[in-house]
Amino acid sequence: MRDFSGDHRWLSLNTATVRKQGDLADIIDACARHGIRAIDPWRDQVAAIGLDRAVWVLRDAGLELSGYCRGGMFTSDIARRQEARDDNRRAVDEAKALGAPCILLVVGGLPQYSRPGSAASKNIAQARTQVEDAIAEMMGYAKQANMPLAIEPLHPAYAADRACVNTTKQALDICDRLDPKRTGALGVALDVYHIWWDPELLPQIARAGKDRLLAFHVCDWLVPTTDILNDRGMMGDGVIDIRSVRGAVEAQGFAGYSEIEIFSNGWWEKPMDEVLRTCIERHRSVV
Amino acid sequence: MRDFSGDHRWLSLNTATVRKQGDLADIIDACARHGIRAIDPWRDQVAAIGLDRAVWVLRDAGLELSGYCRGGMFTSDIARRQEARDDNRRAVDEAKALGAPCILLVVGGLPQYSRPGSAASKNIAQARTQVEDAIAEMMGYAKQANMPLAIEPLHPAYAADRACVNTTKQALDICDRLDPKRTGALGVALDVYHIWWDPELLPQIARAGKDRLLAFHVCDWLVPTTDILNDRGMMGDGVIDIRSVRGAVEAQGFAGYSEIEIFSNGWWEKPMDEVLRTCIERHRSVV
Repeated sequence: MRDFSGDHRWLSLNTATVRKQGDLADIIDACARHGIRAIDPWRDQVAAIGLDRAVWVLRDAGLELSGYCRGGMFTSDIARRQEARDDNRRAVDEAKALGAPCILLVVGGLPQYSRPGSAASKNIAQARTQVEDAIAEMMGYAKQANMPLAIEPLHPAYAADRACVNTTKQALDICDRLDPKRTGALGVALDVYHIWWDPELLPQIARAGKDRLLAFHVCDWLVPTTDILNDRGMMGDGVIDIRSVRGAVEAQGFAGYSEIEIFSNGWWEKPMDEVLRTCIERHRSVV
Repeated sequence: MRDFSGDHRWLSLNTATVRKQGDLADIIDACARHGIRAIDPWRDQVAAIGLDRAVWVLRDAGLELSGYCRGGMFTSDIARRQEARDDNRRAVDEAKALGAPCILLVVGGLPQYSRPGSAASKNIAQARTQVEDAIAEMMGYAKQANMPLAIEPLHPAYAADRACVNTTKQALDICDRLDPKRTGALGVALDVYHIWWDPELLPQIARAGKDRLLAFHVCDWLVPTTDILNDRGMMGDGVIDIRSVRGAVEAQGFAGYSEIEIFSNGWWEKPMDEVLRTCIERHRSVV
């Protein structure tokens, strides 16, 4: 297991962590200032400053990407199917332009939440079938761009509205069906927030192996959690044994960035430099 | 599958649903008024009016029990182990006095939340081992009283603070290890709120079979959920396909009560009669 205590060489910042403190150019500037070498930007943040400018600012700052957030939201009624398909193809094009190593997929929950306006459904099994079909289709486009897709299992608390893929096993089952030869085109993005509770986590990480482990995210689970989406914790402030999960991932050969992604009303209120300083400190002491 | 549309013969009320509107005697009185035949009372509600009086009021109203809430909170540090053991034995004695068909087990999460004052831990695997050991021990006492124990898997959102048994599979694995002969001493209580998201739900219900299905609870998952504990929905107000889960349970031969358990700041503010009328209406139209 890598020793993170001496530097933050392997820290990547998911830019949602400071999305209220500045635009993507501000965030990149702050990362350069704090010696952070990689980010994972969100599409809306890229769009806000323009894709061309984002590419230019990233290169100028010498930053790498640890991923691109996000594709997915595959579930919809038939009327919105083409919209979802086109939207995801644009995500691939953007990821390619930005030099991202993979696209994170938040697959969508029930169609009325994933693509608002879609006819309401309570059929989660059907949503899951639709997700798998849509990933298969997106893979065709993404392969041409040589852009790996990373399915992110989301905590079961988000099953209705954000992602109906809720366990590592479920994500890996999809990978095995759609990419049985482990070509590198499909894998998983594991965020400790979503998976820490899973009694099958360690065997599933071993099953994933290095070639399916495309991204590793950290934050913490607070007790109590006061907001189901936006009360995630800074590493060390909650109950997750982060280091043991990282150890399991690295035991499979994962050697990429440890990406910090914190959706938090509390941290969004603090100055960007304070957040980044804390991220660096906790990366070294807790992650 | 039973037809609930014509009456509410198989409705049981978990008394937490109206716990802020009156004491247990008031609730039993209201149930009798609305033709509700069964309840599942909580220990604190029984204690508040006294066990003897609770027994007497129940008999007087002619109500059955569909369960007794609750045993568990097994996880603690060593200093509190005896306290947890004694507490659970008292739960068995009370359940016996009340004529409950089983005790619901909410097993506890990390020890500092399950038994406050316990030394803090982030080791959920260790908590799970402790839970299994404690259930094995409690079974010895419960068997003498001929009192079945029903492990309730809780939604992964409660893994830290309320229960580290979070899937039906995990609960059934414990049952198979501790009661391999399916003697009836150990089974599961399935609440749609906790399990609806699980991609393995249907095969696990089939695996459980009639002799492991000791209780069936309903409410609904709201989107958005504004409070992780106390914003559960009235059946029909959320996204759970309740009838399909009930169908799966009844396909295994489950023929007991459909118990309504709603922790909701919103419903706790409404008059008891209005809540019960709505429960009955939704039991007939949605469950």
